[in-house]
Amino acid sequence: MVSHDKAYQRHDGRISNQLRNTTIETNVSRYAEGSCLITQGNTKILCTATIDESVPSFLRHKQQGWVTCEYSMLPRATHHRIDRKRMLDDGRVKEIQRLIGRSMRACIDFKLLGERQIKLDCDVLDADGGTRTASITGAFIALHEAITYIMEIELIKKSPILFHIAAVSCGIVNNIPLLDLNYEEDSQADVDANFVLNDKNDIIEIQATSEGNTFNHQQYNQLYDLATQGISTLIEKQKSVLN
Amino acid sequence: MVSHDKAYQRHDGRISNQLRNTTIETNVSRYAEGSCLITQGNTKILCTATIDESVPSFLRHKQQGWVTCEYSMLPRATHHRIDRKRMLDDGRVKEIQRLIGRSMRACIDFKLLGERQIKLDCDVLDADGGTRTASITGAFIALHEAITYIMEIELIKKSPILFHIAAVSCGIVNNIPLLDLNYEEDSQADVDANFVLNDKNDIIEIQATSEGNTFNHQQYNQLYDLATQGISTLIEKQKSVLN
Amino acid sequence: MVSHDKAYQRHDGRISNQLRNTTIETNVSRYAEGSCLITQGNTKILCTATIDESVPSFLRHKQQGWVTCEYSMLPRATHHRIDRKRMLDDGRVKEIQRLIGRSMRACIDFKLLGERQIKLDCDVLDADGGTRTASITGAFIALHEAITYIMEIELIKKSPILFHIAAVSCGIVNNIPLLDLNYEEDSQADVDANFVLNDKNDIIEIQATSEGNTFNHQQYNQLYDLATQGISTLIEKQKSVLN
Amino acid sequence: MVSHDKAYQRHDGRISNQLRNTTIETNVSRYAEGSCLITQGNTKILCTATIDESVPSFLRHKQQGWVTCEYSMLPRATHHRIDRKRMLDDGRVKEIQRLIGRSMRACIDFKLLGERQIKLDCDVLDADGGTRTASITGAFIALHEAITYIMEIELIKKSPILFHIAAVSCGIVNNIPLLDLNYEEDSQADVDANFVLNDKNDIIEIQATSEGNTFNHQQYNQLYDLATQGISTLIEKQKSVLN
Amino acid sequence: MVSHDKAYQRHDGRISNQLRNTTIETNVSRYAEGSCLITQGNTKILCTATIDESVPSFLRHKQQGWVTCEYSMLPRATHHRIDRKRMLDDGRVKEIQRLIGRSMRACIDFKLLGERQIKLDCDVLDADGGTRTASITGAFIALHEAITYIMEIELIKKSPILFHIAAVSCGIVNNIPLLDLNYEEDSQADVDANFVLNDKNDIIEIQATSEGNTFNHQQYNQLYDLATQGISTLIEKQKSVLN
Amino acid sequence: MVSHDKAYQRHDGRISNQLRNTTIETNVSRYAEGSCLITQGNTKILCTATIDESVPSFLRHKQQGWVTCEYSMLPRATHHRIDRKRMLDDGRVKEIQRLIGRSMRACIDFKLLGERQIKLDCDVLDADGGTRTASITGAFIALHEAITYIMEIELIKKSPILFHIAAVSCGIVNNIPLLDLNYEEDSQADVDANFVLNDKNDIIEIQATSEGNTFNHQQYNQLYDLATQGISTLIEKQKSVLN
Repeated sequence: MVSHDKAYQRHDGRISNQLRNTTIETNVSRYAEGSCLITQGNTKILCTATIDESVPSFLRHKQQGWVTCEYSMLPRATHHRIDRKRMLDDGRVKEIQRLIGRSMRACIDFKLLGERQIKLDCDVLDADGGTRTASITGAFIALHEAITYIMEIELIKKSPILFHIAAVSCGIVNNIPLLDLNYEEDSQADVDANFVLNDKNDIIEIQATSEGNTFNHQQYNQLYDLATQGISTLIEKQKSVLN
Repeated sequence: MVSHDKAYQRHDGRISNQLRNTTIETNVSRYAEGSCLITQGNTKILCTATIDESVPSFLRHKQQGWVTCEYSMLPRATHHRIDRKRMLDDGRVKEIQRLIGRSMRACIDFKLLGERQIKLDCDVLDADGGTRTASITGAFIALHEAITYIMEIELIKKSPILFHIAAVSCGIVNNIPLLDLNYEEDSQADVDANFVLNDKNDIIEIQATSEGNTFNHQQYNQLYDLATQGISTLIEKQKSVLN
Repeated sequence: MVSHDKAYQRHDGRISNQLRNTTIETNVSRYAEGSCLITQGNTKILCTATIDESVPSFLRHKQQGWVTCEYSMLPRATHHRIDRKRMLDDGRVKEIQRLIGRSMRACIDFKLLGERQIKLDCDVLDADGGTRTASITGAFIALHEAITYIMEIELIKKSPILFHIAAVSCGIVNNIPLLDLNYEEDSQADVDANFVLNDKNDIIEIQATSEGNTFNHQQYNQLYDLATQGISTLIEKQKSVLN
Repeated sequence: MVSHDKAYQRHDGRISNQLRNTTIETNVSRYAEGSCLITQGNTKILCTATIDESVPSFLRHKQQGWVTCEYSMLPRATHHRIDRKRMLDDGRVKEIQRLIGRSMRACIDFKLLGERQIKLDCDVLDADGGTRTASITGAFIALHEAITYIMEIELIKKSPILFHIAAVSCGIVNNIPLLDLNYEEDSQADVDANFVLNDKNDIIEIQATSEGNTFNHQQYNQLYDLATQGISTLIEKQKSVLN
Repeated sequence: MVSHDKAYQRHDGRISNQLRNTTIETNVSRYAEGSCLITQGNTKILCTATIDESVPSFLRHKQQGWVTCEYSMLPRATHHRIDRKRMLDDGRVKEIQRLIGRSMRACIDFKLLGERQIKLDCDVLDADGGTRTASITGAFIALHEAITYIMEIELIKKSPILFHIAAVSCGIVNNIPLLDLNYEEDSQADVDANFVLNDKNDIIEIQATSEGNTFNHQQYNQLYDLATQGISTLIEKQKSVLN
Repeated sequence: MVSHDKAYQRHDGRISNQLRNTTIETNVSRYAEGSCLITQGNTKILCTATIDESVPSFLRHKQQGWVTCEYSMLPRATHHRIDRKRMLDDGRVKEIQRLIGRSMRACIDFKLLGERQIKLDCDVLDADGGTRTASITGAFIALHEAITYIMEIELIKKSPILFHIAAVSCGIVNNIPLLDLNYEEDSQADVDANFVLNDKNDIIEIQATSEGNTFNHQQYNQLYDLATQGISTLIEKQKSVLN
């Protein structure tokens, strides 16, 4: 029923398992301890990391650190202007920033980080689909840069980073499983899945949702295969930027 | 590495693929058009469905309906008293009610529902793990009862329900994949996964998160197998209650 | 002008000075230090008591305790679904929970309670009139259970409970003074009065309001007489439950 | 036990059934359709009435009017400066303005008022006890002035005012029932009662609360007697101001 | 182009460089450590100063004080009733209270004030133009009275007041520069300027805004001249009140 | 006393009347009808203009348009991370966006704009002083681009732009009047002034504030001279970008 046909022509010319053109520019903020601008197709996100020498109250005096994340969009990152107040309380925004925060915490050894907090901010400048996954891929870079900074000023000695992580979206459009949906594809998809994996292909998080049509286990496996390919490429890109 | 050992003894005496004792009592609210009290182990949730003869503004004059959900906990549904104001803005609560709402919308034909809205409320009276999945299983019953009601008073002629849905949590504790975690198991789990499936075993939503340890594709498959078993049992229970 | 006619037939078959059927089930919450489910006619309220080993800042270091109360309704406790956010800021809700809190504080010796706080929560599951007075009758039980608990674990030695309290509503409908109005009677009443009394018939609080017609001193006395009868019965019921 | 001793000397020299010196100055606001400044002892309150040619949505197209009230204090109306934001959400403030609103609605024939709303504002400039009752006595004057105004400009023909109303506080201090407590007396009172009566001595509202000690029916009657005396005097004062 | 014609007849009979009749009554609040009621034409503002023996956290342990200000209007201080909640969040209100606060801080030596805070409140009872400038002129008096008070009770020895300040509005109406606009003039003005000066004619703050027409440097100078005249008169009035 | 010494060496090497290096890049947003990125020294601001085919309710059916502005900073636009919620309610932010809005409305003929609204958003990516004035200079470009767009699609025929406007800050540091302060200079300045002028050197708005020291009329004139020079250069830059 589902054909994984690489010859399938997508609106933007890509084949089904092809990522959008992705660039990561680091050190883009004048003040943040770590930062990058990630561009994936037309999606553009500014990620910053702030070192905060305090921890939330539930962690005080436990000799371990914490990582949190906030996600937001500029009012005209999208087709229709978004109200700033609504953005702050928006359920979708909270869901996304919880996903990013969980993912980032999965790759950090909190004991090695010490009693401090890293606050990540992902602000979408232009949105064309895949903003939550590109935020994860970019936030990892900002986090890594901030950790490099506190190692350089010798606040910590050993890196608390356990492994690299990156994320990508996949979906099923007209029965074709596709990698890295843009906005147009996303709005036509029957299934929308986000995968967060590490550099050993282990799973950090899966979120897969039927939108219009349900899907079966075989289709899930096709999406997972696409995700492993896309994330390998993204992690290579991350590593080249960090060296 | 992972052994699926049915002899594994859980704290409450269950074997690994065994659901907690689950009961569903319908028609428990004096005023709601549909309602049930679902009890799964010690988790107890009151689900009500309200028929609202209006739709959100984005659907006005489109001859189709909508389903939304709100999820909340009573202040002492859990170990520590929860502040009511914080509950309202809580990111976790918004994430959960978005999941329940998406799942419920997946099983309804909005054209057949007509230009009206069904508002589901899931209020947790006692929480002992698995509240979001039990909410889905119960909310389906409240939704079904409310639809039966509007068919009886002849607001609609044909049922808009596409299929039955239910949900269950699974997780990996000490390398053992377990079905239907209670709070104690959930707090020790390395992986926490929630599955929403329909009565044809098709997937509505997957949310799987590493907590402490990552997991691999083979482990995912074990969790999926457990979920299909558990959800079949839950849907049988739903069907017996509705007849 | 006003006849106190016991033969007057109420919609639900009661005579004018007859309470609705009332039951109190204790120990209904898995986590709360004290709890009960009070049912008075169709009105059903879950009351929980939480021990908090801290006091509000104005009482710090004064070797005395405090009691507060929050009152709320589940969204479908009533004919029309109530918005959760509005409920939190609602003036009527604040008025009611202030009444319950004042009443509960009247029966406690704060020195004997010690520097800790008891937080009461009254959550209405079904509302059919008299929710504020049934909340008081039920909250006393939850409070009593919580105090029994902290005496059992030897946090305090002597009970700080000064006396039993209970409450009931009365009203004048079609010139007939009635005890314990249900919703239908309440919405037709010219006068609505709530009495909180203790087991010596002393007054803790009176709130009497004209709704449509004013009333005179003689009518007030009739309502007070009804209240003393009803509250005696309720306090007997409380005492039988606590033993 | 309780002696009603007129020789009892109060801190400010009054006897037990003596009102504080009370003045009402009308027409004190440049813009409001009705207004007065009421001074009762050191308590000073600005009351304004605003005619609003619309009604709340629940009354639309019902050919009848409505009256609402808001109560507030200036930040330094009292010993300690009050935060403006907290004032807005304060439970006590909401309780008071609900009392004033109910009382004002009791003296108006909404059919005669027509489909318009009168919004009353009571802003306490200086507080020395009895602000809620002085607000009622003053708000009635502002309401009356606003109604005179809309009769003069011929928006309505017949006055919708059913009767005069005024209010006073009473209390029991050291076992002595006292009329019109000031702040110092109020803070020592065992019982605090507020009465709203009309010019026929009929009851609009009673709120009586034990603070420290409970009270009995006989004591209630003594407080009621004091209130009828005080309110007669206040209504005479109102009538002299309005002519 | 612009003629500074003193014969120009204003609606209220004043000539162009004439202040409205201004009175300042001190000691008008029962509780505030400093207070005054300033009346400038029909504009009437109650100003109070509160001594707070704590400082904002950014000043803690720095042996210096702080001055803040809040500005508000009573609901019927103006033609149309203002909603209290909106008032609190209103951008114009925040702009005004920032101006008043900055101005008041400019005339205080914070080291001499010591580690305490003075909180000023300007509450407009009637508004007829120029409320922000009259608030500054009045707030200075309340501030001065509060400082006199803490010198009398010997909390500080040397007055921290550096100089007197007062403020006035000017504007250009029909090409005529006018001093001290009332509401009617203000609503017709092409240019609206507010000046805060001290008793040496030095500038504390200038805010000049084109409303409808731009203005040039020569016109600015004419407004500045008017302001220096008006503020001299106001500071004389302040000094006579304080002695 | 004040010497206008062009040889004065500023920290960043500029002379006293020298603007920072300023660039304006247009068409930087994928979705906004007008946009630019303005860079003035290290200050970097993204300005977007949104066409909204509705007007605020007070302008409905008046055949004229409106322009509003919102100003915000990304959390790490500055030394210390700013909380997003606080940013929304911040008094300084509201003051700034009111200034930008007033300035933008001054250069538009609302009749020619027609019954529609242009919403400007100025989001600071990096802040190094002068963000409110650079926002005005940039917002004018975004506004101009949006108007060009609606003229191209023939929604309006004649440009409603009355004149070009730009803004700059000036200040007095160590008695030296300086043009275009960066953050370091701003934090040492005794006087901080913001000028908004048009291309005819006419004044739209002046805001001048003493911070530490007062200033006199002669010093004001020196600041005004600097501003006219700086703004001429900025308007030339605007014009070159728009052609």
